[in-house]
Amino acid sequence: METPLVTLYGPVADDLVLVEDLLESTKRVDIPMLKRMLDHALEARGKRLRPALVLLAGTFGDYDLNRLVPLGAAIELLHTASLVHDDVVDGATSRRGRPTANQLFDNALTVLLGDYMFANAAEMVTRTGSLHVTRLFALTLMKMTSGELDQDAAAFDVGKDIQHYLWRIGGKTASLFANATEGGASLAGCRPEWVEALRSYGYNLGMAFQIVDDVLDFVGDEAVLGKPVGSDLREGNLTLPALLLLERYPKNNPIAKFFSARRKREQYLQEAIRMVRESEVIDLSRDMARDYVARACEAIGGLPDTPAKRSLLDIARYVLERNS
Amino acid sequence: METPLVTLYGPVADDLVLVEDLLESTKRVDIPMLKRMLDHALEARGKRLRPALVLLAGTFGDYDLNRLVPLGAAIELLHTASLVHDDVVDGATSRRGRPTANQLFDNALTVLLGDYMFANAAEMVTRTGSLHVTRLFALTLMKMTSGELDQDAAAFDVGKDIQHYLWRIGGKTASLFANATEGGASLAGCRPEWVEALRSYGYNLGMAFQIVDDVLDFVGDEAVLGKPVGSDLREGNLTLPALLLLERYPKNNPIAKFFSARRKREQYLQEAIRMVRESEVIDLSRDMARDYVARACEAIGGLPDTPAKRSLLDIARYVLERNS
Repeated sequence: METPLVTLYGPVADDLVLVEDLLESTKRVDIPMLKRMLDHALEARGKRLRPALVLLAGTFGDYDLNRLVPLGAAIELLHTASLVHDDVVDGATSRRGRPTANQLFDNALTVLLGDYMFANAAEMVTRTGSLHVTRLFALTLMKMTSGELDQDAAAFDVGKDIQHYLWRIGGKTASLFANATEGGASLAGCRPEWVEALRSYGYNLGMAFQIVDDVLDFVGDEAVLGKPVGSDLREGNLTLPALLLLERYPKNNPIAKFFSARRKREQYLQEAIRMVRESEVIDLSRDMARDYVARACEAIGGLPDTPAKRSLLDIARYVLERNS
Repeated sequence: METPLVTLYGPVADDLVLVEDLLESTKRVDIPMLKRMLDHALEARGKRLRPALVLLAGTFGDYDLNRLVPLGAAIELLHTASLVHDDVVDGATSRRGRPTANQLFDNALTVLLGDYMFANAAEMVTRTGSLHVTRLFALTLMKMTSGELDQDAAAFDVGKDIQHYLWRIGGKTASLFANATEGGASLAGCRPEWVEALRSYGYNLGMAFQIVDDVLDFVGDEAVLGKPVGSDLREGNLTLPALLLLERYPKNNPIAKFFSARRKREQYLQEAIRMVRESEVIDLSRDMARDYVARACEAIGGLPDTPAKRSLLDIARYVLERNS
């Protein structure tokens, strides 16, 4: 059984309701179609992990909820908007057991929904009153879309290596985690070394988070994930386990066959998924996630021992253990 | 023969090269696919009307190019990004005689290209050093996407009226013109009445600009427009000339028939286009555009008589006369 997140978020768990209220307020719009779409996109309450990171980082300085809460909401909106566009880009029909926006509405309206949410996120971050944090936020979105775009452009290309994979997930996932902790610390007026320590924590946590995500895509429970096992590979997205398999078994590799074959593609795909699951690459991938988590914890080693710090260390462990 | 724009932009024409340089710098990225896409999206040099409005508005206060140029570039980037997404949304294959990004690359990559450009625009606007103008910019993008989304949701719906059309173009087009002049004036530290006067000028100019665009879609030269006459109507987008035709000829209207028919749709469409072109609704639409231009000029009546003001008045006239 997993640790309930409300326990994990410790000292800031109660304040997260303010982020929830602010997110809820963004649904109040006059355009009926936009309202329906926002209701759908914001209905699936996530773990609110990124807003929790903003608030936790903020505890290491002047914990001003008037500034931290808008950043938390902005980051969650940005995250949700990027999922909305990812689902259009991937042609995904369901996410975590619910139909995607592009499935319920259509691609055209869903592109505009995502644009609206990006704009709303940008508006939200200006409410922090900090041009510096607003700028950081825009730079993060540039990194995220660069990472996504690169992933999409590299689909079905076996020429990319692990270094490239790490760069890509650094952009598409870790940059937003880093923005959460760096932004929170910066708004709280923490001293520069602490801001950097918390940024590094967020970045390394995000790297581990994405690697675990990519492992779960191979070994997770389909019912819990809400998508078939091996979805990434099917879309031509070479994640860490697949890259390790290619590296360790360069000859006759079923992934290479799946990518290049014109016939029996489904058979090669299933063979590749089985081989990934049964080989040591899953453990090796988890080891890499563990390394990143260790770096995350190390980064905040110099911060005072507070409930918030213990919460950050617990979250780091949770990221390794989670199964959905 | 149309007035060359460089003459129109008068006192700021030379400074626009700085906006051009800044736009050019955004193409310098490391990701090969992104670079190719940015090259394409930013290759078709537009009229740079919106950046010119930023600089012209800025002349009425402290004309600081270090702040005005980033806003001009940000607004042009935002405009270009929104066209990139509009072409995905509409499934357009060409724009002004060039293939669209979604045609050259694919929808998935083009959605991400637009996202990247929105993010870059947001990053650019923070270089103005003004949180107020950055916030204005985010609010503008919310209005633009609301207008676009509403237009898309209302496609093939004859139940919408002219009031609704005006609201929609206010969002999708006029809000960015208003942002250009209000933002420029605000960065220059103009007194509040002048900021409001310039905002109103931009808004009304934008309304006229879009109405003329919608008229040209019916009466323009296909070779100059780079798209077939009547494209809006074909996509189910009821613009002012079409709405006036429906209002004036409610019985047996070919537009209503085109929207509801299952057979002979092309025939009804061609009939509708011919009827719009030959009836008085084109003149009536131009009259409305002229009214908005008059309001734009009136709004800046109280500003000092400078070369920049004369340029703004010339631009207002040009918007009515333009044929592409």
